[in-house]
Amino acid sequence: MGTMPDDDERILLTPGPLTTSRTVREAMLRDWGSRDPAFAAMTARVRRRLVALAGGEDTHDAVLLQGSGTFGVEAMLGTFVPVDGKVLILVNGAYGRRMAQICRAIGRAHTVLEWDEDQPVDPAATSAALAADAGITHVAVVYSETTSGIVNPLPEVAGVVAAAGRRLLVDAMSAFGALPCEAQTLGYEALVASANKCLEGVPGLTFVVARRTALAAAAGRARPGWRRWTGRWTSTRPKAAWPVAPPATGATARSWWKACGRSASGRCCPPTSRGRSSSPSTRRPTRASTSRRSTIAWRSAAT
Amino acid sequence: MGTMPDDDERILLTPGPLTTSRTVREAMLRDWGSRDPAFAAMTARVRRRLVALAGGEDTHDAVLLQGSGTFGVEAMLGTFVPVDGKVLILVNGAYGRRMAQICRAIGRAHTVLEWDEDQPVDPAATSAALAADAGITHVAVVYSETTSGIVNPLPEVAGVVAAAGRRLLVDAMSAFGALPCEAQTLGYEALVASANKCLEGVPGLTFVVARRTALAAAAGRARPGWRRWTGRWTSTRPKAAWPVAPPATGATARSWWKACGRSASGRCCPPTSRGRSSSPSTRRPTRASTSRRSTIAWRSAAT
Repeated sequence: MGTMPDDDERILLTPGPLTTSRTVREAMLRDWGSRDPAFAAMTARVRRRLVALAGGEDTHDAVLLQGSGTFGVEAMLGTFVPVDGKVLILVNGAYGRRMAQICRAIGRAHTVLEWDEDQPVDPAATSAALAADAGITHVAVVYSETTSGIVNPLPEVAGVVAAAGRRLLVDAMSAFGALPCEAQTLGYEALVASANKCLEGVPGLTFVVARRTALAAAAGRARPGWRRWTGRWTSTRPKAAWPVAPPATGATARSWWKACGRSASGRCCPPTSRGRSSSPSTRRPTRASTSRRSTIAWRSAAT
Repeated sequence: MGTMPDDDERILLTPGPLTTSRTVREAMLRDWGSRDPAFAAMTARVRRRLVALAGGEDTHDAVLLQGSGTFGVEAMLGTFVPVDGKVLILVNGAYGRRMAQICRAIGRAHTVLEWDEDQPVDPAATSAALAADAGITHVAVVYSETTSGIVNPLPEVAGVVAAAGRRLLVDAMSAFGALPCEAQTLGYEALVASANKCLEGVPGLTFVVARRTALAAAAGRARPGWRRWTGRWTSTRPKAAWPVAPPATGATARSWWKACGRSASGRCCPPTSRGRSSSPSTRRPTRASTSRRSTIAWRSAAT
């Protein structure tokens, strides 16, 4: 693309959107037709790459959505929790509370376990809450509370959810790309994140990595605004890449692909945490992830 | 920005997304902080410009949303039609049918009047339907059916809706920026369109131009995914520019601003139709608007 002047370069010290590389932004300089086979193929590559980053090749698929992270969370909750389901929401910050707000708005039964904003959620209390209410079908938790930087003990929460035979939904907004999000280890039903946090893409896209069986079971549940997941999404037909509307920020998607294509390791967890099992006894609550710090982890994972 | 190589230039002959200018795309080369006062100010300018394009300065406001056009339509229907309201949907193509599908999904009572895909909707039949059902509170119509190119007689439909004392909701997706969308003449409660049709912006943003009184009345009705309209949106506080999540595709919004800033005339209708009233007797159903033709109209309006 040649050398561009840097007079508009600035560093964003926000938890997201974050600073993107010039390479990522320059990928938006081309228009893409949303029904173009080349665009469909690119979309398929992005989806495969996201599933690979989550280590879910054998079990999971990735669904792309235009919109904000909050929109992705709403789509995930509304699509995977059936109308006769009930969600236990673990809350220790603004994004946990927002999940409760969303469930109220879209009419999904839910109950909330809440902790102070400077405390991680507690797996033991979660386990007790599940034991006490057989009606709970799903557990929803924020992995990294963007507002406070608290990282919740996801592996331990995943363990108690699995032990209780319930399904796990994860808001990994400021975690995916920096913290371990292994589908096999964590066994989540679905995990939502967005392009403009630790993947360092431009804003405007959100995505859900979901168990294929859950996608199939949710057929018909996704609303127009959330897109018609399942079926066409999981199809291999080229036109199936973006269902319903011809939507897709082609340029944005391309830019996103550039961003997530930087992962040489192919998995979205830092090498330091990949080899080691995250033993509950040695894991402590961490106040870690401003996105810049996550980014550092991501970069070290990618080299 | 200097000269860029043109090897990736291509013309999209689709009804949208359409080809964008290099100037518009290059506006995406800068990162914006979503809480930056400069970004809030730009957002405010975009909103004002959209209201001006619709000629609604005295009565209407503009709300920006990340997402596809379908998402914007869902947000409009769900926000402005109360749960005890009822929508008459005029259908003569895929996007009319989609509004009915959305109403079913979000639980809004509705009734459908349908015509063949090569026929415009009929104001007289609309009037009769309104007379026959006092429970109908709103009428929803697609201005230009993108799939067929049929332009519906919006001024005449607006006339019968106003005469019957009901409220008008317009999907102007492939019309806004090319066909007259005057808020004062048409008196719509709300009109939805997107950045990537006749405004020639990049995809990813949709917007609703809505009567201020309707925004106030809808307080509390907007859902998290649709954003919390009203209140904060209509506030002049800088932070109010993008409520709820720090969302905004800064780069995309900037690009959009570049696109809609090209209108020298300040209104989104071609000069040929602005000076003349659109008399029902002389207006005929037109099969006009592929987006490229709309674009030509828009360009001639802008010079």
